[in-house]
Amino acid sequence: MTGTAPASFTADDYEARMERAARQAAEAGLAGLLVAPGPDLVWLTGYTPTAVTERLTLLILAAGRDPVLVVPTLEAPDAERAPGAPALTLRDWTDGKDPYAATAALLDADGRFGISDNTWAMHLLGLQKALPGTSYASLTEALPMLRAVKDAAELDLLAAAGAAADAAFEEIRGVAFAGRRESDVAADLASLLRRFGHSQVDFTIVASGPNGANPHHEIGDRVIERGDMVVLDFGGLKDGYGSDTSRTVHVGEPTDEERRVHDLVREAQEAGFRAVRPGAACQDVDRAARAVIADAGYGEYFIHRTGHGIGVTTHEPPYMIEGEERPLVPGMCFSVEPGVYLPGRFGVRIEDIVTVTEDGGRRLNNTARDMVIVD
Amino acid sequence: MTGTAPASFTADDYEARMERAARQAAEAGLAGLLVAPGPDLVWLTGYTPTAVTERLTLLILAAGRDPVLVVPTLEAPDAERAPGAPALTLRDWTDGKDPYAATAALLDADGRFGISDNTWAMHLLGLQKALPGTSYASLTEALPMLRAVKDAAELDLLAAAGAAADAAFEEIRGVAFAGRRESDVAADLASLLRRFGHSQVDFTIVASGPNGANPHHEIGDRVIERGDMVVLDFGGLKDGYGSDTSRTVHVGEPTDEERRVHDLVREAQEAGFRAVRPGAACQDVDRAARAVIADAGYGEYFIHRTGHGIGVTTHEPPYMIEGEERPLVPGMCFSVEPGVYLPGRFGVRIEDIVTVTEDGGRRLNNTARDMVIVD
Repeated sequence: MTGTAPASFTADDYEARMERAARQAAEAGLAGLLVAPGPDLVWLTGYTPTAVTERLTLLILAAGRDPVLVVPTLEAPDAERAPGAPALTLRDWTDGKDPYAATAALLDADGRFGISDNTWAMHLLGLQKALPGTSYASLTEALPMLRAVKDAAELDLLAAAGAAADAAFEEIRGVAFAGRRESDVAADLASLLRRFGHSQVDFTIVASGPNGANPHHEIGDRVIERGDMVVLDFGGLKDGYGSDTSRTVHVGEPTDEERRVHDLVREAQEAGFRAVRPGAACQDVDRAARAVIADAGYGEYFIHRTGHGIGVTTHEPPYMIEGEERPLVPGMCFSVEPGVYLPGRFGVRIEDIVTVTEDGGRRLNNTARDMVIVD
Repeated sequence: MTGTAPASFTADDYEARMERAARQAAEAGLAGLLVAPGPDLVWLTGYTPTAVTERLTLLILAAGRDPVLVVPTLEAPDAERAPGAPALTLRDWTDGKDPYAATAALLDADGRFGISDNTWAMHLLGLQKALPGTSYASLTEALPMLRAVKDAAELDLLAAAGAAADAAFEEIRGVAFAGRRESDVAADLASLLRRFGHSQVDFTIVASGPNGANPHHEIGDRVIERGDMVVLDFGGLKDGYGSDTSRTVHVGEPTDEERRVHDLVREAQEAGFRAVRPGAACQDVDRAARAVIADAGYGEYFIHRTGHGIGVTTHEPPYMIEGEERPLVPGMCFSVEPGVYLPGRFGVRIEDIVTVTEDGGRRLNNTARDMVIVD
């Protein structure tokens, strides 16, 4: 779920991000950060190689030193065109040379480093062999909140992605549901996300009737019937930043119980949203939403955490989950998505992306949260 | 460059591959192999998760023990549908549990393991922490030839991919070159590969005039002119197996020098092909092709190795390169692709996929190797 670099950021922006990362690493007792191609490298430098191969590409950040990007010679011309390149020193290495020895020469020989989660194991093994005195922690474990607080430009991009997802929902309300397969409606959703500017579609969940009771059901061949509840959960990347929203619609008139459960989830989602304010703990958002559902006697049917962060990926820290005591900070962006799942029968989930402001939460999804009736 | 699993293989085929891998690992002094999603897992089990995430999926192979696939509970239903699943025991783990502890319980606590190159560093760190007595080598370093020898069904799939690439070349000969951008011809090539059955296009190099002198040039906005040499190098995956072929065409009539260099590369490619026989060393193929070019005084302009293996990826061991003394074995498949690159002027490369038979080499690309004149 790596993003492409949006054109919205300058070399100065990337320089500031790299400085922030190096400073946070030093504060966490790390000698530096090592970042391979993926979402962390996109966020720090705007650079994505054409293909991720066995050839080492690695960003080295350490407080007080200039950032260095180790790249294969063949790929150096591409790397030089990355928007963050002016803030970097490129060190290229040629096929046949040992890239780990070249990297090791730039590292503290007995330091502890944060290394991006998705770095290839062969590269970590190469570094461990070249510098046996070093130790490593995964970047997300070491600095889980590194990308969590978004600046104004990032918020604009996330809001635009959310608006595009909203536009897709407004269109999907009008398509035929009854008599078509889940996979057909999912294809419509993917096509709409692209039409409204997404370059990458990460998921288009269409979970009808009993499939809706499995929060991890994605798409199947089930033919949607009149009388079904249908959970729609869709998102991807637009201009390098993510969208992720869910609405639960009903094909034809719902029963009283279906209305009641939908109202309950809506109320829980509202409670989660209202718990968003600077200084509240992440788990407070989960607790607020969960209390509504538990108080109504449906606690055992809300079987996942309430939310996850979003940025250059559609799924990242912070997590709105019991036990996550870190405080909400203005600029954080995450989903608030409680659900109720009645096994063998139906499910309801309502999800908005919410950002923390000085005054509380601000929703980046704004379509109707009352139950929409579709055909 | 991961392939999708072709339907051509049965659980028995995958079981035999896993047994072979476990046996080779034991012979190499390893306690077992650990394989994350990617080409190795595709080859061993036919399984590709919908998305590669931070949730651990890992195949464990050890001689004398049944293969185990550790999977997130959410993804277990998908894994159960993999063609190799009947030959596997699935061990699922649930969010919130420690997947490394669960995996560690299945491993020799002080063993040395081969681990697939592209396994995420965070997973390797998790295993190293759970079992501090273990040590690791990258799978390609430990067992470089694991996937190198293809069986009859794999050869059929590689031959079909090669024939599709040949069909694409026969069509591209007829399109307009002069006055169009490299990127336009590249788009035509990609579209032709798909039309002839490729599900994935890995590269479509169109390197015209002076761009052809850079073997790593991919595609640019240069407008192709009458009088240009144009290197075409294209490939991808069809039914899970790779194609990769190069031909150098000329827009209008070539000069005597262009003809002479093209003839030389053709002769070098033929010499490399004729060096293919069981028991010859990989480097013998490189030497044979290189000698032809060096003898003609162009040695300094042949600036890359002569070939690389192909299978479920378009780029893998064995490598036809000086220093690779391992012997050719019937069933190996690789490229033979010498080239001459005259800086600032033009380049020529001719490439076929070749497989080793008892009697010598057999080409899987069979379009004309003499210089094709295009418009």
